[in-house]
Amino acid sequence: MDYTFSKALAGMNGTATREIFKLTSKPEVISFAGGLPAGDALPVQQLSEIASEFFYDPSAVRGMLQYSVTEGIPGFREVVLEQVKDLGIIGQTVENVLITSGGGQGLDLLCKAFLDPGDAVLVERPTFLGFLQTLNSYNARTVGVEADECGIDLADLEGKLLEYHPKLIYLIPTFSNPTGKTCPLERRKAIIELASRHGAIIMEDDPYGRLRFSGEAVAPMKAMDERGVVVYVSSFSKTISPGLRCGFSIGPSEIIRKMTIGKQGVDLHTATLSQHLIKRYIEKEFFLSNIKRSLPIYKERKDAMMNAIKRYMPDSFKHTDPEGGLFIWGEFMDGTDTSAKFPFAIEKKVAYIQGEVFYAENAKKNALRLNYSNESPERIEAGMKALGQAFS
Amino acid sequence: MDYTFSKALAGMNGTATREIFKLTSKPEVISFAGGLPAGDALPVQQLSEIASEFFYDPSAVRGMLQYSVTEGIPGFREVVLEQVKDLGIIGQTVENVLITSGGGQGLDLLCKAFLDPGDAVLVERPTFLGFLQTLNSYNARTVGVEADECGIDLADLEGKLLEYHPKLIYLIPTFSNPTGKTCPLERRKAIIELASRHGAIIMEDDPYGRLRFSGEAVAPMKAMDERGVVVYVSSFSKTISPGLRCGFSIGPSEIIRKMTIGKQGVDLHTATLSQHLIKRYIEKEFFLSNIKRSLPIYKERKDAMMNAIKRYMPDSFKHTDPEGGLFIWGEFMDGTDTSAKFPFAIEKKVAYIQGEVFYAENAKKNALRLNYSNESPERIEAGMKALGQAFS
Repeated sequence: MDYTFSKALAGMNGTATREIFKLTSKPEVISFAGGLPAGDALPVQQLSEIASEFFYDPSAVRGMLQYSVTEGIPGFREVVLEQVKDLGIIGQTVENVLITSGGGQGLDLLCKAFLDPGDAVLVERPTFLGFLQTLNSYNARTVGVEADECGIDLADLEGKLLEYHPKLIYLIPTFSNPTGKTCPLERRKAIIELASRHGAIIMEDDPYGRLRFSGEAVAPMKAMDERGVVVYVSSFSKTISPGLRCGFSIGPSEIIRKMTIGKQGVDLHTATLSQHLIKRYIEKEFFLSNIKRSLPIYKERKDAMMNAIKRYMPDSFKHTDPEGGLFIWGEFMDGTDTSAKFPFAIEKKVAYIQGEVFYAENAKKNALRLNYSNESPERIEAGMKALGQAFS
Repeated sequence: MDYTFSKALAGMNGTATREIFKLTSKPEVISFAGGLPAGDALPVQQLSEIASEFFYDPSAVRGMLQYSVTEGIPGFREVVLEQVKDLGIIGQTVENVLITSGGGQGLDLLCKAFLDPGDAVLVERPTFLGFLQTLNSYNARTVGVEADECGIDLADLEGKLLEYHPKLIYLIPTFSNPTGKTCPLERRKAIIELASRHGAIIMEDDPYGRLRFSGEAVAPMKAMDERGVVVYVSSFSKTISPGLRCGFSIGPSEIIRKMTIGKQGVDLHTATLSQHLIKRYIEKEFFLSNIKRSLPIYKERKDAMMNAIKRYMPDSFKHTDPEGGLFIWGEFMDGTDTSAKFPFAIEKKVAYIQGEVFYAENAKKNALRLNYSNESPERIEAGMKALGQAFS
């Protein structure tokens, strides 16, 4: 039989990165292509202790195995609100929180709540590939906004707000994927001002904000949102465990309510065992202490990559110098085509992601994203040496 | 700020059942409103043993906490295919399977893969409320097809295939929600014949099929699908644990591929710990043995409800007599309005779901759904006595 797929999915045939991940799953390939948290940072011991406590008493487990409510297991939203207070996100109630199946589900549900086919959404250039895919699945009109070293350009943002009347603006203001850049406080305020003047909702995606290993913290945009224009979307994937698929969104109650209704028709609720593990983990005050333990791991790896870039990459390679998160972004000023070079890198058993996949349109061909979080300093050194040879 | 939601979600403000569940969450209310598997049927002991084994060796846990692939953890799809062979679903490969976050996600991803706004979908009258909501979220045109005691009416089905050119036909052929009815073999074959002639995909939702406590098994429609017209959507929610949110879909590889791409943009993958628990549980051959242990629980409760109906409900109440699953459906031949009667039932501390919510249009006002799986025989007896009084 022939199948007539929806307009949105008919044209989607998997991403370039999917194929890359197949190549990089071989252990002999040193991969800077992924976006995994450091394996050594995963709190295996603490989560195992909690799980062992749970399952030691099977009668207590029964409730964890039944259906639960869409919003999140009882008490979990309160724990989440307590946990974001030190970021400056205060004055929120449980009506402002939804537990999601990973942070990405928060993004998807916001699209579901707001977007009709053809609706415009503004994104930074470049931006998170996964969200570009999500926007495609809603048949959205994705419009890129230019950015400088501090994030999205205000003049271009205003121009595109006027021209496209977007419903949503998508930003990763802290340690952006793919660039690692952080948007400073004053610009955050100016973006909020512009967005509320034009009636656009800011989707503040913040999976990496806690992973700051140098410099001064900048408050999330949600912490300075006085008019209900920001929805804060975050995740425990980079701070506790990605496999558990648990995140949360914080926003105006009216929006959270629509997202909750959307979630009912999608997966009903997030896996209860994942929620119980993470709730107990935070209650036991493992959250910040384990992040503190893991930051030197990230810093050491990032430093290893920065040093190796200096040593092995050509002078034409200009790159970011992030203060946290998982990624370094680089561009070849001599116009080197990073897609064309990819087979040479794989031949030398090292992988990256070509920059062009992070753009909705007018992609830069001379850029790449390097991930430093999931390889040891020794493998980073060896991999960058090989990469330097591939690009020479 | 004012929010302009998507056309699909603007009109959705939560369901009637949501409010009912708030009322019925009080322990003094005997609830026939839900759709939970019997608490006593949950394999608490076995899952606890497996989890304890996992977490006894934290180093083995590390892999379970990282990201995984969208299709399902390694080896799990093979286990699922092995597990459905006794249903007659054979000759499938891993390319035909997707692990989903509950069975409901399979339904949602099929909608995402196929539906543009306004596309028609045929559903049985009455049908699963949750799927009607999902269809609303896609702005689908939902068209009800009449049914008799054996399921969907073939003449009406053919007429509506001709009139509406639907992309999808949604059916729960075994122990339907909300009616408990099962569609016999010959009619299943005739439906497949009609669907393939008109180029419509059959979504065969089968969460309850394993819960047969009397009568003869009928093969799933997928088992007789020679032309790739059926996608089989199922779940471990009723057979292992709903809280783990784990299900699977089996269909033509081209469709499964589109669903996989859709899932990437939704939740990336199903919680790995849930997948590992269920995979090991099936490998240890707990699956069929625990279902066998649980069937007498379901039968006892269903019998208790049937007996109590005879004793306490008025003669005008005509109802189904299911051979498995969770639900009995009844209609008052004297036209009693079940929504109007609901406050009287709640006053007597018993709850049900009014039948009208299970229709997309032209709802029957004189019907109700009774769930027998999650109350003890004693409470079923007491609750039905109270219900009889409310309806007298």
